[in-house]
Amino acid sequence: MSECKPERRVYLNGEFVLERDARISIFDSALMFGDMVFEMTRSFNKKQHRLRDHLDRLYRGIKQLRIPLKMTVEEMEQRVCETQEKNEPAFDPHDEHRMMINVSRGPLAMYKMVFGGTVQPTVVIADFPVKWTVASFAHIYDAGYHAVTPSQRAIPSALLDAKIKNRSRMHYMVANLQVSLVEDPAALALLLDPDGFIAEGTGANFFIVRDGVLLTPEGRNILRGITRQHTMDLARRLGIEVREQNLELYDAHHADEAFFTSTGYTMIPCTKLNGIPIGDGKVGPMFRRLIDAWNRDVGVDIIAQTQAFAAEVGDALAGTNIYRFVKEKSA
Amino acid sequence: MSECKPERRVYLNGEFVLERDARISIFDSALMFGDMVFEMTRSFNKKQHRLRDHLDRLYRGIKQLRIPLKMTVEEMEQRVCETQEKNEPAFDPHDEHRMMINVSRGPLAMYKMVFGGTVQPTVVIADFPVKWTVASFAHIYDAGYHAVTPSQRAIPSALLDAKIKNRSRMHYMVANLQVSLVEDPAALALLLDPDGFIAEGTGANFFIVRDGVLLTPEGRNILRGITRQHTMDLARRLGIEVREQNLELYDAHHADEAFFTSTGYTMIPCTKLNGIPIGDGKVGPMFRRLIDAWNRDVGVDIIAQTQAFAAEVGDALAGTNIYRFVKEKSA
Amino acid sequence: MSECKPERRVYLNGEFVLERDARISIFDSALMFGDMVFEMTRSFNKKQHRLRDHLDRLYRGIKQLRIPLKMTVEEMEQRVCETQEKNEPAFDPHDEHRMMINVSRGPLAMYKMVFGGTVQPTVVIADFPVKWTVASFAHIYDAGYHAVTPSQRAIPSALLDAKIKNRSRMHYMVANLQVSLVEDPAALALLLDPDGFIAEGTGANFFIVRDGVLLTPEGRNILRGITRQHTMDLARRLGIEVREQNLELYDAHHADEAFFTSTGYTMIPCTKLNGIPIGDGKVGPMFRRLIDAWNRDVGVDIIAQTQAFAAEVGDALAGTNIYRFVKEKSA
Amino acid sequence: MSECKPERRVYLNGEFVLERDARISIFDSALMFGDMVFEMTRSFNKKQHRLRDHLDRLYRGIKQLRIPLKMTVEEMEQRVCETQEKNEPAFDPHDEHRMMINVSRGPLAMYKMVFGGTVQPTVVIADFPVKWTVASFAHIYDAGYHAVTPSQRAIPSALLDAKIKNRSRMHYMVANLQVSLVEDPAALALLLDPDGFIAEGTGANFFIVRDGVLLTPEGRNILRGITRQHTMDLARRLGIEVREQNLELYDAHHADEAFFTSTGYTMIPCTKLNGIPIGDGKVGPMFRRLIDAWNRDVGVDIIAQTQAFAAEVGDALAGTNIYRFVKEKSA
Amino acid sequence: MSECKPERRVYLNGEFVLERDARISIFDSALMFGDMVFEMTRSFNKKQHRLRDHLDRLYRGIKQLRIPLKMTVEEMEQRVCETQEKNEPAFDPHDEHRMMINVSRGPLAMYKMVFGGTVQPTVVIADFPVKWTVASFAHIYDAGYHAVTPSQRAIPSALLDAKIKNRSRMHYMVANLQVSLVEDPAALALLLDPDGFIAEGTGANFFIVRDGVLLTPEGRNILRGITRQHTMDLARRLGIEVREQNLELYDAHHADEAFFTSTGYTMIPCTKLNGIPIGDGKVGPMFRRLIDAWNRDVGVDIIAQTQAFAAEVGDALAGTNIYRFVKEKSA
Amino acid sequence: MSECKPERRVYLNGEFVLERDARISIFDSALMFGDMVFEMTRSFNKKQHRLRDHLDRLYRGIKQLRIPLKMTVEEMEQRVCETQEKNEPAFDPHDEHRMMINVSRGPLAMYKMVFGGTVQPTVVIADFPVKWTVASFAHIYDAGYHAVTPSQRAIPSALLDAKIKNRSRMHYMVANLQVSLVEDPAALALLLDPDGFIAEGTGANFFIVRDGVLLTPEGRNILRGITRQHTMDLARRLGIEVREQNLELYDAHHADEAFFTSTGYTMIPCTKLNGIPIGDGKVGPMFRRLIDAWNRDVGVDIIAQTQAFAAEVGDALAGTNIYRFVKEKSA
Repeated sequence: MSECKPERRVYLNGEFVLERDARISIFDSALMFGDMVFEMTRSFNKKQHRLRDHLDRLYRGIKQLRIPLKMTVEEMEQRVCETQEKNEPAFDPHDEHRMMINVSRGPLAMYKMVFGGTVQPTVVIADFPVKWTVASFAHIYDAGYHAVTPSQRAIPSALLDAKIKNRSRMHYMVANLQVSLVEDPAALALLLDPDGFIAEGTGANFFIVRDGVLLTPEGRNILRGITRQHTMDLARRLGIEVREQNLELYDAHHADEAFFTSTGYTMIPCTKLNGIPIGDGKVGPMFRRLIDAWNRDVGVDIIAQTQAFAAEVGDALAGTNIYRFVKEKSA
Repeated sequence: MSECKPERRVYLNGEFVLERDARISIFDSALMFGDMVFEMTRSFNKKQHRLRDHLDRLYRGIKQLRIPLKMTVEEMEQRVCETQEKNEPAFDPHDEHRMMINVSRGPLAMYKMVFGGTVQPTVVIADFPVKWTVASFAHIYDAGYHAVTPSQRAIPSALLDAKIKNRSRMHYMVANLQVSLVEDPAALALLLDPDGFIAEGTGANFFIVRDGVLLTPEGRNILRGITRQHTMDLARRLGIEVREQNLELYDAHHADEAFFTSTGYTMIPCTKLNGIPIGDGKVGPMFRRLIDAWNRDVGVDIIAQTQAFAAEVGDALAGTNIYRFVKEKSA
Repeated sequence: MSECKPERRVYLNGEFVLERDARISIFDSALMFGDMVFEMTRSFNKKQHRLRDHLDRLYRGIKQLRIPLKMTVEEMEQRVCETQEKNEPAFDPHDEHRMMINVSRGPLAMYKMVFGGTVQPTVVIADFPVKWTVASFAHIYDAGYHAVTPSQRAIPSALLDAKIKNRSRMHYMVANLQVSLVEDPAALALLLDPDGFIAEGTGANFFIVRDGVLLTPEGRNILRGITRQHTMDLARRLGIEVREQNLELYDAHHADEAFFTSTGYTMIPCTKLNGIPIGDGKVGPMFRRLIDAWNRDVGVDIIAQTQAFAAEVGDALAGTNIYRFVKEKSA
Repeated sequence: MSECKPERRVYLNGEFVLERDARISIFDSALMFGDMVFEMTRSFNKKQHRLRDHLDRLYRGIKQLRIPLKMTVEEMEQRVCETQEKNEPAFDPHDEHRMMINVSRGPLAMYKMVFGGTVQPTVVIADFPVKWTVASFAHIYDAGYHAVTPSQRAIPSALLDAKIKNRSRMHYMVANLQVSLVEDPAALALLLDPDGFIAEGTGANFFIVRDGVLLTPEGRNILRGITRQHTMDLARRLGIEVREQNLELYDAHHADEAFFTSTGYTMIPCTKLNGIPIGDGKVGPMFRRLIDAWNRDVGVDIIAQTQAFAAEVGDALAGTNIYRFVKEKSA
Repeated sequence: MSECKPERRVYLNGEFVLERDARISIFDSALMFGDMVFEMTRSFNKKQHRLRDHLDRLYRGIKQLRIPLKMTVEEMEQRVCETQEKNEPAFDPHDEHRMMINVSRGPLAMYKMVFGGTVQPTVVIADFPVKWTVASFAHIYDAGYHAVTPSQRAIPSALLDAKIKNRSRMHYMVANLQVSLVEDPAALALLLDPDGFIAEGTGANFFIVRDGVLLTPEGRNILRGITRQHTMDLARRLGIEVREQNLELYDAHHADEAFFTSTGYTMIPCTKLNGIPIGDGKVGPMFRRLIDAWNRDVGVDIIAQTQAFAAEVGDALAGTNIYRFVKEKSA
Repeated sequence: MSECKPERRVYLNGEFVLERDARISIFDSALMFGDMVFEMTRSFNKKQHRLRDHLDRLYRGIKQLRIPLKMTVEEMEQRVCETQEKNEPAFDPHDEHRMMINVSRGPLAMYKMVFGGTVQPTVVIADFPVKWTVASFAHIYDAGYHAVTPSQRAIPSALLDAKIKNRSRMHYMVANLQVSLVEDPAALALLLDPDGFIAEGTGANFFIVRDGVLLTPEGRNILRGITRQHTMDLARRLGIEVREQNLELYDAHHADEAFFTSTGYTMIPCTKLNGIPIGDGKVGPMFRRLIDAWNRDVGVDIIAQTQAFAAEVGDALAGTNIYRFVKEKSA
């Protein structure tokens, strides 16, 4: 991708390996059981946003899954910073860093002979350009997403807790597959839980706006996104009322506006739901007000930056939208 | 592990790599989404048992998840055989081969630049000694397992289908963790589904015997095990009535016998449930009759072989029981 | 529609009115509460198929909803026959008769002053050409339907019993709307119930074929179709095993064949499910065998007749497929 | 009904037809699928109460069901007013107007040949005396209703959304039927949802009073009544705390007071639940305070007016209580 | 109660006490937790019917609840027989014996000081005339019961297992209370489970007959009655097909016949369901055939005996029907 | 237990009987149906704490279950006080009084002949030393309880309402049994409801502390404990925010502190959940602050008193912890 630049490297259990060589043993619990917790963060102007909040959530998962990791959260934070520093020369000056932090309990004890008789948790810190993630979203800022509810439901937290950001997510793939049947290329999956309440996208939180109030599903059968939290924080600072509550399709159909949040692209509008326009079907004033607040807060014009990234990437990543790739690949 | 023998190798996307180097990219859908289907088979007298049935199940998962794999099931079968052949010199003559076959859709398209712009499905065929898996079960044949129902429930198939043998299994880990609190080292998790029906162990099917009839949960919220199927086939050949039906704790508490099946150890008795003996709390005649049928069918004395494996492995794998390792590791 | 022929008439509470004038008071319970039971039958060679079975089902609904209808089932049968006879001159010789029989408890008592102080149940018997219903299905016989599961679920029978063929079916409309978003014009809704079991289409029953056995959902959260019953009867006469049981998406994805039944078109193939081919994605031998049995049983080549009807109707009814009209109308 | 007065007329797709001739085609989606949205409003002193709020709700249903209606909400409002004006001469000076506004997507496209090849949405605006609706409630103001929970449950909104005021309400009829078995003529159905929370009456919202606070079920599995809203608005203006929350039978059994709201009669007391008095079993002070507020707000003594209506109607409408007619009719 | 006869005595932990003195400590687990298992049997011609089957069920409960009872089932059987023998002089020659056998784990250990520091399980064997139980049913044999479904649902077995005949049955009382509101004195509660399937009466099993086949709910959320079993056994001996399966209200509404079974009265017809006649609303031929089979099997004309008992008891037990007493008492 | 002191007596339907003779007829509805409501209160410095609140709850149960008790709540309060007074001489000066008040509808009417033809409700007021209940908890104050979630779930209130403090609690026993398998003697059951929300212990309410806020499950599927209420009252008086809301395992795992409340011991820390420390696994500052508030409020150093009681009781009550006795007894 860049000729004279050094190659990106990934922190892997204490070593920095080439990105393409960042791999995990087939005997690792991460692969055997989807038993891995992770975070994906991003920088604004090269500074990781709310990094410690991400890592605190990571460590909540480590605790609840009883992963016997010795590394403290402070050490982890330092490792993340080192990794970014080390990789900075491999990035363009205008690039932003997307960090992916993975922790698993490592290879299963049963296979320890493969590894000389001892096994230990696996820690991965990868660092790649934000533009890979967000390029495909640039054109959505104008017309907005079209949320479609697949028959695949979100899994209730008592069965598999989305609040622990984990890798047992095959059902997200199934949801994406179902929605990829829809004619509209801007369609993306919005999952309902088995009670029929709106849960989340497959990697994004959902908000609606009604009468000037910001509403988002209760933090139950969803990942409680850091970007979701930051958006609520910003809104409250602006004096906007924010409520976490059960939301139904009815609420979303008759909202004034709607949008998704995710760490990669922060906020993106949603203007249609199951074929029916939300509000007047256009990007609304609350969205603009909040993304402006984001821009000021992080010192970056997020939409402009995303569009610049898209222009730079060009067609190289066409059809790789994280929410729709199943279809493109199987075509 | 063996000095003068060649090292075991793993088929990985067309190449045979050293076992310890058999790894999967951190950008693979298998790691990002637990989006990988797999099979684990074993040999008896070096012959893989019902290999094609395992592969047919694998391909059902590939189809339903729309993994764009080009390799046909016939080619896959051939690859598995080649892998075993190639590794045979690395095995002792009395060893049996455990094959693990993994298929994922490969790295996510979004990360294709890491891989020179193209991505393809991931295929792994590993081959390691059965003794690793079964050594820890040898001592269970005498006293039997103690099934304990954790509060973690099986996930209904409409949300995450256990019938597709997949890697989104964090909830198995949670179940094992809960059961590892029980005093009895022979305790293992028996999952109920949200309706309260018995589902399965975390990697094993469950049977009870009542009045000479063999009963096992309907193939709904469970993996429909090949070994489960083979045990039913053998029983029917012996003229034993077999029924797949919803089973409740009441049924299991008042059964005459119970046992688990899994490909590694085939059948293993279960003599206690939630602290209460099943039947007279001893290994029963139906279990003995069926394992004899297995022995004759595969030409191996399964219990004797397992005990020999255990003796051979000795303490090297103590505390690595697949169903209990969480506790040991966190100790 | 036909110049010199007499116009079709509808039996309405003892009178024969013009089809366009067959209307029901806005104060009728049918309109106030969707509180109307009905049947839709069809003729083969001008003879109504299993008419009495349809009427028996109608009267089960009348009984369970306590509609105080005085007319006996025998009288009703006679009225239906009279209606067809009376209308025959308005039909072409090659036409078949589709009868719609509606019964409600009539205008609500509260509004009885509008009707001179007394109210009585409403009985409607309409008779129109089968070709209206089936013309849009003719082209499906080659490639088959594409069943898509919307997020709208079937309503459990304990809440609203589909076994009573009734008019409270707004959720069918919602399901059709959701599926009309799918790119494929052959897509139609296949409803799951809240447990995730396959229920039915929005006006059609669903069958799969596996290893030569015919499987269809238990008669619980579905209409127990007369055509569903007749297809099972024919299959059993051919020595084919038939089982009513809970079916999941997994079962349908890995079936050899699938098809829908409905009184209008009898049987129609289903070759794709949520974007994935069923079997080899082609119309299968069991379908052909069963429709042949139908043809022989009713003395009509059903597919040929349907195609002739489609040719006759031409474009006049384009875009009126009962399962998809929502989309066409809103376009 | 009145000799020298003109007859009442109903707006029906642009025309004003006699009330008894206000009918809808049997091919209309309203009759085929219960696929019709509606509103029922009433006047106080000849002025329709919160008419625009009713119409806004109507249009939310039109939007969500994708009914391709051209008429705007402003035009609809005007049509309603015209209809009342036109009918005023047919009313007594002391009468109030009850308007029923129905909208469906019209005859199904499949039957368009019946209608000359084109179909369009159906719009009905009926206008009849409020006294028909409320006469049977007059005697309830003294002793109060007896709420009884039938085994029929409310349908969860994710399956059939009561918030869209629609005509698929057969289950209301079933609930009424079950409760009509109770000895007490003042018994009426109070539906629980499948979770056991109190939902609503079959056409009425439910409130309880506890320690001076007004409590009513969350707006989830219920119609969010305009009269429910207005009662909450009035209470808040009086400084009374109002909370929408999940309510259980326990809450209602131990409430100080309870009452129902519905547009026809506004508020009516409920003094008994499943055979057990609520509070002291008498009409309570909060009820009196709120109905006084209503009286002042609308400039009508609602109870007095209802009793005058009842006296006027006399026995002409005996046994036509909307909540109990099933039983009377079948007797 | 009888002057010259000896008084009845109850076996209580090894002693025979007067019936009125048969009491259990307020510190007993039976009273603290409803933690008691029991059986109620009856004699025909002085011989206890299927006593051992009842006691085997009792011991299943003892085992599953881990009650540390030392007495074996054989000893228990002997105690029951002794108790009947000892009491026979207190009975009339034509009387039958109703035995009630209660077992609890005894006073809670925490209260052992009250009992001198040691506690032991509680065993009660009472023996009273069958006529007390059945007298109130005599008049039902002609017209049959009217089954009414209350809003109280049966508790799923995974939460509280009705298959263990236990004393945590407050919900039965609630169901009886709800049904006692119904006008018909022959009304009794028929519980649905939360899925809407028919479960059982509050102390009786339910059967329907359709096309000559005997159908009864699966043995899941119900007590698997010994009398239920015996009725199925008798039917099979007569060549009648019997099926245990999920039954819905629809099935019962459209059955040809229905009846309840319970140990006291064996079988009793049910001719109405929620106000709607079952079949023709009369006692049917299958009922007569089966009760005849019972009569022959036990050597007693059950209906005649019951009517004789009723005549003997006269008004002394009026209003004590086990299924309805709540209402009578509160009146 | 005390030589020269008088013996304790229990109020039983108007009489004061010896504690060991306080028994209830085997024909009482309490024993037949677990149909008894009750309260357990305790004194501080000989004064019953919030006695009237307990009795008001008792009378809510009496009302809802329609127990035809004549005694008013005022009379009941007086009876309780008299009972304590009468028993005071039987207590040591430093003792506290634990009162148990039981009310049932009395013997079933069917058995009234045993009682001379009339039956009446049963009222029991027992009075025994608090030390029996709390002695076994003394050592928990240091290390805290270990909450373990059994597979037995809390019963939803719509099926069996825990808010009515009743004796149908066999499921509590089952939960205790399951948890008694856990290695840790400090393990006690924490029940989840079927939705996976935390409900309560088997006789105790649960609280967590997060960021200085006190959180406890909504009062839905739990007993709304008086001690729970008093703890919330005290916290609010201290300016601590208190919220009743749905809590999941995730919330408890990541809380700063947790504790149980129950009338006997008031508050007791919980420092571990399913094997994972809560917070730092130590008794926390909020717990200390609140128990101090309790101490001040009731004028007793609760922990010191409990420890003194434990020292006094010594080993006499070892192994009688109300939450764990099942195991001890069956050993």
